[in-house]
Parts: sequence; C-alpha cells; structure tokens
Amino acid sequence: MVIAIDAMGGDHGPRVTVAGAAEALSRDTSGRLRFVLHGDEALIAPELAKLPALKAVATIAHTDQFIAMDEKPAQALRRKGTSLFAAIASVKARDAHAVVSAGNTGALMALSKMLLKMMTDDLERPAIACGWPNEKGGMGTVLDVGANVTSDANQLIEFAVMGTAFHRAVRGKDRPTVGLLNVGSEDVKGHEEVREAHRILREGVDGINYHGFVEGDDIGKGTVDVVVTDGFTGNIALKTAEGTAKFVKNLFKGALKSTPLAMAGALLASSALKKMARSVDPGAANGGPLLGLNGIVVKSHGGAEAWAFSNAVSVAISLAASTYEHDIRQALAQVNSAHGLKSDTVPADKAVDEKVS
Amino acid sequence: MVIAIDAMGGDHGPRVTVAGAAEALSRDTSGRLRFVLHGDEALIAPELAKLPALKAVATIAHTDQFIAMDEKPAQALRRKGTSLFAAIASVKARDAHAVVSAGNTGALMALSKMLLKMMTDDLERPAIACGWPNEKGGMGTVLDVGANVTSDANQLIEFAVMGTAFHRAVRGKDRPTVGLLNVGSEDVKGHEEVREAHRILREGVDGINYHGFVEGDDIGKGTVDVVVTDGFTGNIALKTAEGTAKFVKNLFKGALKSTPLAMAGALLASSALKKMARSVDPGAANGGPLLGLNGIVVKSHGGAEAWAFSNAVSVAISLAASTYEHDIRQALAQVNSAHGLKSDTVPADKAVDEKVS
Repeated sequence: MVIAIDAMGGDHGPRVTVAGAAEALSRDTSGRLRFVLHGDEALIAPELAKLPALKAVATIAHTDQFIAMDEKPAQALRRKGTSLFAAIASVKARDAHAVVSAGNTGALMALSKMLLKMMTDDLERPAIACGWPNEKGGMGTVLDVGANVTSDANQLIEFAVMGTAFHRAVRGKDRPTVGLLNVGSEDVKGHEEVREAHRILREGVDGINYHGFVEGDDIGKGTVDVVVTDGFTGNIALKTAEGTAKFVKNLFKGALKSTPLAMAGALLASSALKKMARSVDPGAANGGPLLGLNGIVVKSHGGAEAWAFSNAVSVAISLAASTYEHDIRQALAQVNSAHGLKSDTVPADKAVDEKVS
Repeated sequence: MVIAIDAMGGDHGPRVTVAGAAEALSRDTSGRLRFVLHGDEALIAPELAKLPALKAVATIAHTDQFIAMDEKPAQALRRKGTSLFAAIASVKARDAHAVVSAGNTGALMALSKMLLKMMTDDLERPAIACGWPNEKGGMGTVLDVGANVTSDANQLIEFAVMGTAFHRAVRGKDRPTVGLLNVGSEDVKGHEEVREAHRILREGVDGINYHGFVEGDDIGKGTVDVVVTDGFTGNIALKTAEGTAKFVKNLFKGALKSTPLAMAGALLASSALKKMARSVDPGAANGGPLLGLNGIVVKSHGGAEAWAFSNAVSVAISLAASTYEHDIRQALAQVNSAHGLKSDTVPADKAVDEKVS
C-alpha cells in the first residue's frame, strides 16, 4: 500500500509530516506500507535520514513549490507544480492509495474535487468527517464538519451512508448506529430538510442502522456512533466543543495552581492527570477524511505535531485497507434506486492495486 | 416591582421555586420587590412559612391546576386555570412586571406568544437568550438557543438588537459587542442568510456595536459580548457545549479518583476545586429570557435547584428594572425605517408601574 504525504503542508512542514509518517509506520503490522513524500528534497532528506525504518520504504517526490496556508484555493488550482497538487494527482493516477495533508484546507478541498471528482453530483463538495471522543471511552464520527454549508435531505442521507462506511473502516464496528442532529427528538422538531431525511431514514435505508434524532449533548454521550448534520451546524458544534473543552481544562489547571495546597495536590495527582490528558488529546482524533471523492484524502489539523499527524496517516491506511470506497459506492447506488434520490454515482475504476506494485 | 412566579413549574415545584425567590430577594437592595406565587396554596404555604422575609412581600395566587412537563403546548393553551397561564396573564394584565417559570418550555413559549403577543410580526416565536461563561471571566449572551428553527437576515438582525438590549440590562455593559456565528471570518463564508445579515450589520445599524463574524470557539473565548445565530444552530451549540463541559469535568473527576495518590492530591486541592466548580456552575448562567414579547418572560432550567432558580429570578428583576423593552422597541423601529426591514413594532403600552402600586 502506498500513502502519498504532502510533506510541505501544515504549520511545521517536514519536521512533523516525516516524523508522523514514521510513527504511523511503526504501528503498521502489514509490512507492505510504502510512502511517497511530496516536497522539497533539501528539507525532507535530513528528516528522513534520522528515521531509517521510514527511509527504507519511502521515496521523495521532489518539488520546491508548495501552497501557503493562506493561499486562495483558486490560485492553488492553477499551480500544478506544488507538493499538494502532485500528491493528490498521484492518487488520481493510481500511483498511491491515499493522500494525507496538513495543509491549506480550502486548497485541499478544491484540488481534491478538481482532480478526483465527486462520487455523486449531489454533493457541492467533499464532506469532512471527524473523530469525537465520547463518555463511553470510544470515538464517534461526526459529519459534515465544515464543507457543505447547506444540506438538503439527500445530502444528509449521503452523509449517513458515507459516515457509516467510514466508521466501519476506521473504528472497526460492523453496523454503526447513526443519528441525525436536531433540536429535539420528536418527529416534528427541526427544519424541513432534517425532518425529510429523518422520514426516509426511518422508513429504512439499506446498510444504515438508523437510531433517530439526537441532540447536541448526545455527541459526547456517545448515544450513536455516527452523528449526521449539515456542514454549517457541524463546524460550529465542533469548534464550540473544542473551545469548551479547552476552557474547562484551563479552569481545572488554573484551580490546581491557585493555592500552594492545590499545587501540592496537583503534584500528587500529576501522573493520573497526565494519563487522562493524553486520553483526550485532540490529536487522538486527528485525521478527517474528505468523503464522497473518487479517492482517499485525509486532512490533518494544520497545527498537528508528529503523534497527531501519525493518527491522520493511520486513518488513511485504515481506509485504504478497507472496502470503504466500494461500500460507499454500492450503498449510494442502492439508496438512489430505492428512494429515487437524484444522485448519480460514478462507476468504480479498476483497483489501485492493479497499477501500483 | 412585582415578579410573578410559576411556583408549580420545573422538576421540583414549590420546594425550589419558593426558596429561589427568597434567595433572589435576599440579594435585592431596592426594598421594593414583591412576589406573586402562582400555584397550589397547600404546597406553597408550608415552603413560604420557612422563609419569613419572602412571606412578608409575597402573596399566593391559588390554583390547583398546573401544566405537566410533557404536556403538549396546544393543550396548555386551552387550560386557562393553570399556574403558568395565570402567571403570564398577570404580566399581560400589568399586574406583574415579569414572570419566571421552570416549567414546560413549549407551553411557556406558546402561552407567552398567545397572551403577550410578539413585538414584531417578523418573529415566528420568541427568541431565547442564554448566559455563556467565557475565558475572560465574564458572561456572554448567545441567542437564539432554541426557538426559531430557521432565521432569515431580518430575524438575525432583530436578534442582534434584542441581544444588545438584554446584555446591557442584565450584564450592565453599555455598548456590548455583537458577533454573528459562522464557519469562518471572511465575508464570503456561510449561507446566504448569515452573509446578508453581516452585510447589513457591517454597513451599520443604530445601537449595534458590530464586531463581525465569529466562530464556535469564539463563544467561550469571549471574543464578543453577544453571539447571534439561528435557533437551530444556537440550540445545538449550547447542548454540545453543555455535554462537552460535563464530559471534561467527569474526566478530571475520574482521574482524581483513579489512584490513591491522585485521591490524596484531590483532597489537598479540594478547596480550590470547589471554588472553581462554583464559578462555572451552569446554574450561574440560569435564566433565559424569551425575547421579542410584549412583556418580560424568563425561562429557568427545569432541573434547577434553588440557587440556580434564584439567578433566573434575578435576570427577570434586572430586565424589569431596566429600559430594556423600550430600548428594543426603539431600536427595532430605527432598524426598520433605516434598512427597510419588514417588521412592524407594536406601540409601547403604558408602563406597568402606572397600574401596579
């Protein structure tokens, strides 16, 4: 399996992306993993030299052009020589099974859509799914968290299909439960789009284990495995939760530094607190797939450090090793024929494996 | 000033509502506060007997009918003898300056709208504002958190007007800053309604100190004083934040109980932790006004204990003591004439004070 890495993307570039690839490799048991690191050889090679295990299975695809974090997507589309362009194009060309980038989200979305095309013409752009730790100690999936600003009932159902396939592939649960995010659990609650999607899902959609409406606090409770919502609400819910988690964490930290007695207490509890902190490190949930594309594209947080970036790489590996693309394609085709949704799915290309050795 | 209390509302009824009124009274310095407690005298009188200060300024408006927490709003509208109906009707009749209820939200909304009428015919139903603690140590205002499921640009601007008047009245800040919740800060981000509201607010609306777009994590940062959003997004953001805060709190609590050493540490830090816990008790932010009505209606959480309920009563007192209703009416009239919004404001009635002695 070949993973293309946009080595220049993110706030830290090759220092993090190369080390992150190495960390993901160290967790791999297949022995068949290979990496292509797209970017400036002068910057990548010194990082790679420190990591012999990675060096043995990685090649550098050199380019000295890269997309800045604040570059406009329209401009990024025209620059064919950039590391991100080349990395995505390698998935299109079936030279790689998946691409991972911590770079400019807008450019990643636009380039992925242009080069790989959407599986269904219903989707304005790829949906982003994210991992969301919950009280049950598991990791839920929430989508869309930022791509499609308005979503009709068809799109919400497609998110349910894609979220199910993603959760199965990456979290290993065969029939993940799906909930539609709403302001209440009764059938009459919410706006028209969400009620229509609820009606169709409740009637039964092949392959979707539908639970019903869920509310904002159900995400963290882990009431369902996959929470479906439009990109506007999903993005705001995600950022609100991140802000709230940081706020509460800082309050605890502040309290534990507020008096000498509290500081002594914190010192005694430090080992337990550190263990807890790692268990809810946002980096554990890093790696948001761009769903609905003909090809696997995983977005890492721009500010990710090596461990967090390695988790995004592992998401790409899990997806590439699974039947995820096939599942989505088949499920969408079934949904469309059974419920008369207007999406057209694009026929599957021949497998990447036929081309990459 | 007369505050009508729906003494039967909420999960705990008179035990909490009567004690909460007493606690709000104990913080009042005006010496002019009076309460009318609507509900079953047989249940209210024993509670009141324990609280001589409150008993001296309270009267009981007896009824043995009350609205169940799960009763349908349509049914509640027809039951004129309930404690909630009577309490809201007393505001309509100018026998009280404000009403506070911890009861059935749907019934409270429907009855308030039917009896008091909306100030503008633009609003489908009252907007609910909530207090939101932030990193700056202050309390922000977020609206709408659950009433209007879809909101056009006009409604969002009306929320900005009402949120400004509420924040000024209750939080005491003369020119609170206002942000529109969106998925990014650039002008092109978001759906049509939010971009149109942004365009109008940026041009300048009298009385609104507009900051611009804000994102989910800006709510907890306290980037602005008043965050405006539609009721669907606002409700989900609020419940997601409540769920996240509880989750992170429980993680810390769990960690501090996970080993004997951590438990010893928690014991040393317990005084600092308790102080912190109280500062972010959700009860501190209890009391969400139903905005846009001809009359002051404050909703308390159904599960509120006496201290939390007392904060909702204090919100009602602050609103009733301020020029809040007049401010909203005037600001809406100015907005409508300057920007051609289609809302009609209803002329102000004569002040309650003329009627209640």
